[in-house]
Amino acid sequence: MTDTFVAGTGIAVFDRAPATRSADQVEHAVRAALADAAVGLDQIDAVYVGNAASGLLTGQEMIRGQVLLRQFDLRGVPVVNCENACASGSTALHLADTALRAGRAGTVLVVGAEKMASEDKQRPMIALAAAVDQERLEEESPDVRGSGSLFMDIYAQLARDYMDKHGATPEDFAALVVKNRRHASHNPVAQFTAAITVEEVLDSRLINDPLTLPMCSPIGNGAAAVILTVEPAPEATTVRLLASSLVSGRGQHSEPAVAHAARLAFRQSGVSPGDVNLAEVHDATAPAELIALEELGLLAPGEGVFAVRKGRLSVGGDLPTNPSGGLVCKGHPVGATGVAQVVEVADQLRGRAGGRQVEGARIGITENAGGWLGGDVAAAAVHLLGR
Amino acid sequence: MTDTFVAGTGIAVFDRAPATRSADQVEHAVRAALADAAVGLDQIDAVYVGNAASGLLTGQEMIRGQVLLRQFDLRGVPVVNCENACASGSTALHLADTALRAGRAGTVLVVGAEKMASEDKQRPMIALAAAVDQERLEEESPDVRGSGSLFMDIYAQLARDYMDKHGATPEDFAALVVKNRRHASHNPVAQFTAAITVEEVLDSRLINDPLTLPMCSPIGNGAAAVILTVEPAPEATTVRLLASSLVSGRGQHSEPAVAHAARLAFRQSGVSPGDVNLAEVHDATAPAELIALEELGLLAPGEGVFAVRKGRLSVGGDLPTNPSGGLVCKGHPVGATGVAQVVEVADQLRGRAGGRQVEGARIGITENAGGWLGGDVAAAAVHLLGR
Repeated sequence: MTDTFVAGTGIAVFDRAPATRSADQVEHAVRAALADAAVGLDQIDAVYVGNAASGLLTGQEMIRGQVLLRQFDLRGVPVVNCENACASGSTALHLADTALRAGRAGTVLVVGAEKMASEDKQRPMIALAAAVDQERLEEESPDVRGSGSLFMDIYAQLARDYMDKHGATPEDFAALVVKNRRHASHNPVAQFTAAITVEEVLDSRLINDPLTLPMCSPIGNGAAAVILTVEPAPEATTVRLLASSLVSGRGQHSEPAVAHAARLAFRQSGVSPGDVNLAEVHDATAPAELIALEELGLLAPGEGVFAVRKGRLSVGGDLPTNPSGGLVCKGHPVGATGVAQVVEVADQLRGRAGGRQVEGARIGITENAGGWLGGDVAAAAVHLLGR
Repeated sequence: MTDTFVAGTGIAVFDRAPATRSADQVEHAVRAALADAAVGLDQIDAVYVGNAASGLLTGQEMIRGQVLLRQFDLRGVPVVNCENACASGSTALHLADTALRAGRAGTVLVVGAEKMASEDKQRPMIALAAAVDQERLEEESPDVRGSGSLFMDIYAQLARDYMDKHGATPEDFAALVVKNRRHASHNPVAQFTAAITVEEVLDSRLINDPLTLPMCSPIGNGAAAVILTVEPAPEATTVRLLASSLVSGRGQHSEPAVAHAARLAFRQSGVSPGDVNLAEVHDATAPAELIALEELGLLAPGEGVFAVRKGRLSVGGDLPTNPSGGLVCKGHPVGATGVAQVVEVADQLRGRAGGRQVEGARIGITENAGGWLGGDVAAAAVHLLGR
């Protein structure tokens, strides 16, 4: 199988202004990625665009990528529009990597984008609820005090289950927010960068017990771009895509989708969880960071509680997680997230992460999950990168 | 490059009942395709789902395929949801073929589906308008008497241009409808199967000159499924996928997207336009059938007029086109169309097309196009199949 490489990355500032234009954010991210890769538009053979819910969020459906990229002269190369809820961006990456491995393209552009902020604050909440089966909404919704956000209700239930099982406390989840805010303070594209204390997190508005507002990823706009190629860059800057796995949920009666995706990715790559130097995981809420690390096999079940208490998950610890600030602090413009995670890991592996740099990082992992169906995420993707 | 093969096909009856459930149509098509291929669900390595506008049509976005396939136990295999307006189905086919050629899968399921019929008759019209740039709606709309359907206005303009250039008449377009109704009368899944005369077509309600109602593809529901595999079936029933091309529009200043896609497909396959025994083309309106045949290089510019007058495009003629009835008579549930075209061609090549069988057909072509951007379709796909 052909090897593939990350030749360039670009990312727009994640914000929450209703006036932000997604096409402008995409333009910024794509131009940055092309410049980083020293690749011209005329060298791009295909484009893969991940967007989760632009139909319901903005009214633009069907040809999302062509519209977002209208300002570029793509000379007729294929534009593939894909969606997999919050895993849309990594689905686009997976398709791009697949096209390279098939020999259908030599260099491709991957874009993840989402415009979520709206003057109508209910609109994103309604749109995000389309990530579950619309004919079975009641069945899929957990039987809890509703927060107004279906997914925050689901995540709150997952957090309570984790607390019951492993003795985690709200203080532990708050400590994750404090850590990720510190990371985000060094990330110029992050949405929330101000320092916060455990007490401030716990004293914030309760969304759904135990989640308070700062523990929940915010509504926001964002775009990220990656150039993937079969041609390696010079040794010093080569980032290799070691594995790309995409799976669907199998429901509650089997292995969780994230664990399944991780197992496939580690098998593809030949590296093992102990080789991983940093992780970008899908912390749609703070507790999900611990659950993800455990499902990925980077921590044993319940070990997350002790990992956060000992500071192992901070930059400087032995398993630095979400150095970008993660979804909770960097932001979670859903279709952009999977691509943004790979941007962060690739930049880390090239030593370009500034104040949040994980020193000596050689292998990184991303985990991106989306939707909810039958008691598990509907889609999960894991990417392993190395240099 | 690995060869790929159509192992099985399935299709649901195209209808226009608001109560039809898309998941039921998908279930029917998938079970038929699995049975035809003599393949179990446990042999499917990945699923590619084409749907154009379910976000706006039904409110289900983000995890469309997982929801449509919920009744199947897919054991966690990846489900990729893709859209490219009316070319969504063939985009799914293209991605599936790519995954096989990359060695990422050995046998895959491709599904195209759309639920369009609604008690609210305006809803499909509004949704379909999302296949153009929503920020430039006025710029993209032709300056004509509006029919209430943006795409019928665009197609009417294309028809008038074709008439001006090549001397085609409304009678020629009506003759195409008569021909395709005759074809559809032998197709048990077609939406419009009653015989019609040229006079009846011309006397029907005018949508936008020269298009009358029977010249326009209807709103409808439908689903189609194809099993693609790297393992050939026994010689007698092997249908080989000779080429799969997907391109985006390049605007008015260059080769039309359909011509571009055809050029790539013929180059990939090594066959030439003269080798083609039958065509399924994207006749969203009757005149588009002639334009497509010419852009594909199957007919010279303007030759379509004479081809229809001489009956060359009928089953029994030398270039039988849309033996299924085409979009105008079989129906055009947008996300299903590209897959349904391949179902028809594969069934024709295996001699299973009953009263509409093209005798001795060995090579067939499909052309599927979608969206509108800058004076051309936003996406176009061409597939060549042979036995």
